[in-house]
Amino acid sequence: MIDIEQILLEKANILVEALPYIRKFYGKTFVIKYGGAAQKESFLKNAFAQDIVLLNFIGIKPIVVHGGGPKITELMKRLGKEPQFIHGHRVTDKETMEIVEMILGGIINKEIVQLINSHGGKAVGLTGKDGGLLRAKKKLLKINNEEVDLGFVGEVERVCIEVLETLQDKGFIPVVAPIGFDKSGQSYNINADTVASAVAVAVKAEKLILLTDVKGITDENSELLSTLKMEEALKLIQQQVITGGMIPKVYACLNALKGDVKKTHIIDGRIPHSLLLEIFTQRGVGTEVIQ
Amino acid sequence: MIDIEQILLEKANILVEALPYIRKFYGKTFVIKYGGAAQKESFLKNAFAQDIVLLNFIGIKPIVVHGGGPKITELMKRLGKEPQFIHGHRVTDKETMEIVEMILGGIINKEIVQLINSHGGKAVGLTGKDGGLLRAKKKLLKINNEEVDLGFVGEVERVCIEVLETLQDKGFIPVVAPIGFDKSGQSYNINADTVASAVAVAVKAEKLILLTDVKGITDENSELLSTLKMEEALKLIQQQVITGGMIPKVYACLNALKGDVKKTHIIDGRIPHSLLLEIFTQRGVGTEVIQ
Amino acid sequence: MIDIEQILLEKANILVEALPYIRKFYGKTFVIKYGGAAQKESFLKNAFAQDIVLLNFIGIKPIVVHGGGPKITELMKRLGKEPQFIHGHRVTDKETMEIVEMILGGIINKEIVQLINSHGGKAVGLTGKDGGLLRAKKKLLKINNEEVDLGFVGEVERVCIEVLETLQDKGFIPVVAPIGFDKSGQSYNINADTVASAVAVAVKAEKLILLTDVKGITDENSELLSTLKMEEALKLIQQQVITGGMIPKVYACLNALKGDVKKTHIIDGRIPHSLLLEIFTQRGVGTEVIQ
Amino acid sequence: MIDIEQILLEKANILVEALPYIRKFYGKTFVIKYGGAAQKESFLKNAFAQDIVLLNFIGIKPIVVHGGGPKITELMKRLGKEPQFIHGHRVTDKETMEIVEMILGGIINKEIVQLINSHGGKAVGLTGKDGGLLRAKKKLLKINNEEVDLGFVGEVERVCIEVLETLQDKGFIPVVAPIGFDKSGQSYNINADTVASAVAVAVKAEKLILLTDVKGITDENSELLSTLKMEEALKLIQQQVITGGMIPKVYACLNALKGDVKKTHIIDGRIPHSLLLEIFTQRGVGTEVIQ
Amino acid sequence: MIDIEQILLEKANILVEALPYIRKFYGKTFVIKYGGAAQKESFLKNAFAQDIVLLNFIGIKPIVVHGGGPKITELMKRLGKEPQFIHGHRVTDKETMEIVEMILGGIINKEIVQLINSHGGKAVGLTGKDGGLLRAKKKLLKINNEEVDLGFVGEVERVCIEVLETLQDKGFIPVVAPIGFDKSGQSYNINADTVASAVAVAVKAEKLILLTDVKGITDENSELLSTLKMEEALKLIQQQVITGGMIPKVYACLNALKGDVKKTHIIDGRIPHSLLLEIFTQRGVGTEVIQ
Amino acid sequence: MIDIEQILLEKANILVEALPYIRKFYGKTFVIKYGGAAQKESFLKNAFAQDIVLLNFIGIKPIVVHGGGPKITELMKRLGKEPQFIHGHRVTDKETMEIVEMILGGIINKEIVQLINSHGGKAVGLTGKDGGLLRAKKKLLKINNEEVDLGFVGEVERVCIEVLETLQDKGFIPVVAPIGFDKSGQSYNINADTVASAVAVAVKAEKLILLTDVKGITDENSELLSTLKMEEALKLIQQQVITGGMIPKVYACLNALKGDVKKTHIIDGRIPHSLLLEIFTQRGVGTEVIQ
Repeated sequence: MIDIEQILLEKANILVEALPYIRKFYGKTFVIKYGGAAQKESFLKNAFAQDIVLLNFIGIKPIVVHGGGPKITELMKRLGKEPQFIHGHRVTDKETMEIVEMILGGIINKEIVQLINSHGGKAVGLTGKDGGLLRAKKKLLKINNEEVDLGFVGEVERVCIEVLETLQDKGFIPVVAPIGFDKSGQSYNINADTVASAVAVAVKAEKLILLTDVKGITDENSELLSTLKMEEALKLIQQQVITGGMIPKVYACLNALKGDVKKTHIIDGRIPHSLLLEIFTQRGVGTEVIQ
Repeated sequence: MIDIEQILLEKANILVEALPYIRKFYGKTFVIKYGGAAQKESFLKNAFAQDIVLLNFIGIKPIVVHGGGPKITELMKRLGKEPQFIHGHRVTDKETMEIVEMILGGIINKEIVQLINSHGGKAVGLTGKDGGLLRAKKKLLKINNEEVDLGFVGEVERVCIEVLETLQDKGFIPVVAPIGFDKSGQSYNINADTVASAVAVAVKAEKLILLTDVKGITDENSELLSTLKMEEALKLIQQQVITGGMIPKVYACLNALKGDVKKTHIIDGRIPHSLLLEIFTQRGVGTEVIQ
Repeated sequence: MIDIEQILLEKANILVEALPYIRKFYGKTFVIKYGGAAQKESFLKNAFAQDIVLLNFIGIKPIVVHGGGPKITELMKRLGKEPQFIHGHRVTDKETMEIVEMILGGIINKEIVQLINSHGGKAVGLTGKDGGLLRAKKKLLKINNEEVDLGFVGEVERVCIEVLETLQDKGFIPVVAPIGFDKSGQSYNINADTVASAVAVAVKAEKLILLTDVKGITDENSELLSTLKMEEALKLIQQQVITGGMIPKVYACLNALKGDVKKTHIIDGRIPHSLLLEIFTQRGVGTEVIQ
Repeated sequence: MIDIEQILLEKANILVEALPYIRKFYGKTFVIKYGGAAQKESFLKNAFAQDIVLLNFIGIKPIVVHGGGPKITELMKRLGKEPQFIHGHRVTDKETMEIVEMILGGIINKEIVQLINSHGGKAVGLTGKDGGLLRAKKKLLKINNEEVDLGFVGEVERVCIEVLETLQDKGFIPVVAPIGFDKSGQSYNINADTVASAVAVAVKAEKLILLTDVKGITDENSELLSTLKMEEALKLIQQQVITGGMIPKVYACLNALKGDVKKTHIIDGRIPHSLLLEIFTQRGVGTEVIQ
Repeated sequence: MIDIEQILLEKANILVEALPYIRKFYGKTFVIKYGGAAQKESFLKNAFAQDIVLLNFIGIKPIVVHGGGPKITELMKRLGKEPQFIHGHRVTDKETMEIVEMILGGIINKEIVQLINSHGGKAVGLTGKDGGLLRAKKKLLKINNEEVDLGFVGEVERVCIEVLETLQDKGFIPVVAPIGFDKSGQSYNINADTVASAVAVAVKAEKLILLTDVKGITDENSELLSTLKMEEALKLIQQQVITGGMIPKVYACLNALKGDVKKTHIIDGRIPHSLLLEIFTQRGVGTEVIQ
Repeated sequence: MIDIEQILLEKANILVEALPYIRKFYGKTFVIKYGGAAQKESFLKNAFAQDIVLLNFIGIKPIVVHGGGPKITELMKRLGKEPQFIHGHRVTDKETMEIVEMILGGIINKEIVQLINSHGGKAVGLTGKDGGLLRAKKKLLKINNEEVDLGFVGEVERVCIEVLETLQDKGFIPVVAPIGFDKSGQSYNINADTVASAVAVAVKAEKLILLTDVKGITDENSELLSTLKMEEALKLIQQQVITGGMIPKVYACLNALKGDVKKTHIIDGRIPHSLLLEIFTQRGVGTEVIQ
């Protein structure tokens, strides 16, 4: 009998441990970049959806931004197109752009919406075209001082938050596919971390959280760094401790911080409920990048 | 000089001719099924978008529901799948369903959104999954008393209008792809006319308007019928004057009327601005089906 | 058959031609000085009322200010009083002031209200006394450095817009008779163009439109000037190209522009629907005076 | 010293004596027919305006309806028309109707508005045309079974209270001239007591108060009756104790009571502040007619 | 490393386990009778306050009703008064009533307010006098058919919920001391369980939860009964299985259920966070009494 | 007969005399320190309650702050504690603080609430703990440069007005007991004049009114000073014309004035309705201290 009571007490304590965080974040917006393993494994997907719905019920307003690279590559191959990447950017011709829109806007976005809704949330999927959300322009890339044409790879020019606010005011959870449009109506494929960062700035988010497939940012000894200041992060990039795909993620964080987002987090999406743990426990499950 | 004044006066008169209709429909919702030629020809597409934006500015609240059959067929073929139809329904296996979602949700829906936005509207695209809009169930089809399995072809079980209302209250124009979901999260391909009809009933629409590629409903002498009562429509179906693809359209109208939609219209989408002409002129450009 | 379609298409095009203007002026206030021929001929009166109601339905908020000189003169004569004018101002003794109030407030104001309402608008007539709308003071006129006593001719001291806002917020169209009051409660007869200008400034109107009985402002060759800048207008007055009754109208425009009204228009009220044409067509039907 | 304190205490007691009435009538609408002596003597006019403003500040919402017979007669005579009355109704030809509109709408209505405003209220004058307030129809009068044509004498067909509510919601005090309009836009001269009664019913007023030039309803011995039930009032009319001009006033009360107005009052407008005294003192200053 | 991850995962699972309950009770009101051990031991008090604040943040609206018997007895003794009880009711003379008001309203109510506020809530203390919350009347007690005078012991006559709603709408947590007042302004001492039940009915609460010093309702073998239907509860009272102080608690539950409160709970206040455990775990920590 | 009319007329005149004050103070907040004789004599208490309710109905928003020294002393003595005062401050040990809370929060606060409610108001009693209203800190007192320990005597550190606004927005009248709390949750006994002054500043009150047991501030000849400027008040303190218990009251006024309260009043609470007389009559019944 004592044992059961003991277990119950521990349960209660864990709920109560969350209280100061709930109080702190009440009514705040979190922008969450969803991707990687968390988007593949069934149990991680469900855990993620539960986390999002839980956040929403306790008064935190989540906005989900997602990518979808692997499925895009898969459909390209089925349609006989060879994916080509330059400096991590997918070269995007007209046909590839259409494939991006089909996969991101038609499949993945709606899958996430359905996932969240099946756990009791009220998600609505958007691409950057809906409500004019993401105005984009062609991304210019220079390598060795020469311009490289990536096709319809874009960057965010302006975020029109009206549709996000309209949905959030009524308790809906926006799920955003990183597709932009320019003045002529042309679609652009944009990096999802970048979109998450730009949206976080535009909505004056409390947090930007990037789910990744690593345990966080590590130092030269591969030890996890729990906290990193902006200047430290820049130094680690210079020192080539932070390398490869982590670099754009760190820049997404830095841009968000410059745009007055309070805190940014790079967390391990392979751990179930990593989102909840990062937010509601002392220790966290990744690296926070702060000012 | 007199000639120019004459022309100006005629212009003004046409604007003024619209006044009684503007007064009558102020604040009312129109559900418009968009498809066919109006979705293909560039000048028809632009005219349609102008009409939608104009309606919205003069206080009419449009909801657009669209189909997209030809593009689905096209992608199926590219992916090596042979489209198969039974009684006008596309047999929809798992892979076809995914193609439907890619084309309707990823491409066509966003194309229409972009089209409307580029003319000054604020459109937001939705599939039936967004905000739990279209709860569906498997469509049961019996032919000669034998059940035929159409795969993931669905019919509307429940329309959850909260997301539509949320968007309309802030001046957004919902654009709906006819994809539903069932309790288990399974996607369904639903006939767009049927969805438009169900949505019209759910939002207590003033009008349901179906854009088609014919001039309207015609009698046995192929003369256009301007107005048709419910019972007359049923009789024409029995007499096999109304046949083929027009039958489900007429049933969509009848079901809307039974659900207290005030008037329904089957109009000729091949005429530019047919929407505007139907609403704002005495004569109209198709057939109205009424109680 | 083709001909009818052609006509319909032209109709639609005219409606669509109005769209950019509708978008541009949505939610804006237009102050319109109504008078002259437009107030006399039955078909011009009806066309004016249709225009006002149409503007209101498409989201433009009109305020009508009217004069009524001829009817005042008529009643004065019937009551045995000889009208006397100094520099275009009606010398207004106590009895004349009462006649002004009877004709403007009792007859013309309500006639316009009824006219608009009979076309489906919701007009409410006001004099400057209602809701303390127009606080006035005695107009001082000097001719050859000598003060001339015009009696109870006033100028606007302060516009109290609360009653206008209250009515406009609920979709009512204010119709204002140019009668003011001073601290002691004394009534004043004020020039209607001046009142329209002051009201336009007070409500931060988008446009001030003066309906006149001429085709607009003309140059020294009697050619209509479509657009006129403030400094050009002043120069034309100095050069005595603009003369007589047009001078106070131009000053009404200039004062409105100084008070941040966006554009002002002097248009030909003898053309039916001149209001609509000025607003919704490229060319317009008079002269716009701009900054 | 004691004397001054005594006086102060009495003052306070009188304020406090009003408290139960203030509590009782908080937020309620009173419709007040204003006329007779109270509209002529300067000190009575000021006292009336003070009363109206005071009522408004303590949370009672007054609507004033006024007549203006003597001034109409005066202008008719000046214009060479001989007033003619049948059973108390002014025979109203086209020209007379115009005189009625000039006097009631142009002069008296605005005079009352100004009077109230000069005491710190926010009055707005209306005729029955403004906001479509008073829809009327021709009054049919039969004498000895023969129809008598009174010209444009009307009765109330419908009261459209939207403009009253709009104004009252923002603290404005509506002042209504008893002029109606019919479907064709024709103006009608309506009895002010009747209008007050119809308005009281339409706005679900707490009280209808008629200011008169007598001390109230008297019995056969000319003794004032403080309270009268509906059936008693009808009996006194049958017994010809209530006669002449008092009869339509009593009917105005009875119709108001039938239309669920709580209480009606016929009070002595010759006493300054009779309105306040009737409402805020035990004894009252006239006759209340109740169910 | 794995161990820490394991622990984190368990933590997350416990948070997630709460999700269905959070969803279910979002926006609902719970009335909680606070008393006994939970009000004495410091760690139980803090745990209770944490629970209340947590409930409030996750969208459940708690109302706390408290007793305070022991402290009343203590002050009575210090002031030389001997407490006297009849059938569990404290005989309450004038002086005792004042002591009740001092202790309940002055000390205990504010202590609970402070306790909740120090954990981040926004509590406001009320007695039944504040906002006219608890209209009471003298409790009549008959023993052996003879009336026994308990002094100022009252029962609830009417609950005026306006002050509760006003506070709850702005996120405040009402804390209610069970003191009522009658028409004459006399104070009454009312049983706190009864007040909690009456308040729960008045605010249409989802749950009534009574914190006690026992593990719940037990059967004849002293085994805890997890769930009890109304008729079963009544039978257990008849069979004298439920006895003594538990009887009025059960009646409080039954009256709440009759008044359409969804569920009632008698829980063990000696377990820390019993409130949370009852609400958010499958098993619960006491007895639920249901319809 | 004439006499009765005369009396009625005088009554009406007194009501009307109040009109300019009602207009002036409409919607403004008055903070009223209630205490002294006005809190003892039954007829003064009723008069005070009537005044508060009357103010509330005519659109003035009163906040009452009260003391309660004599009753605290009385209970201290009954519990065998000897009251001790240093420079007018009650030395407040732990037990005394509890007595203060019992008397102020439990008895006097609720008595005033009940008093106001019985006259038709909607009062809600608060201590500084409710809604975190009065954050306090220990008052430091130096006498001859030596710190004197007054125990739990506090001063106001911060006023959190949310609970006041919440209640006032719904027409409730807050009644505040001058008890504060510090960060640790410790209670403090604060001077009521000081609390009233701090609350007046925090809510941007129009007036601070202190009810006293003297006729106001008097000059060196004991003549009442009707009006006193800030600098004059300071001079009178220096000149020791203002002495003793009046000094803190004057400082309460000065601090309120510095904090932008418009006017402050020290009035004679022994005169019935002194509150009403001060506000609504020319002469007033005490001293106003102004900038």
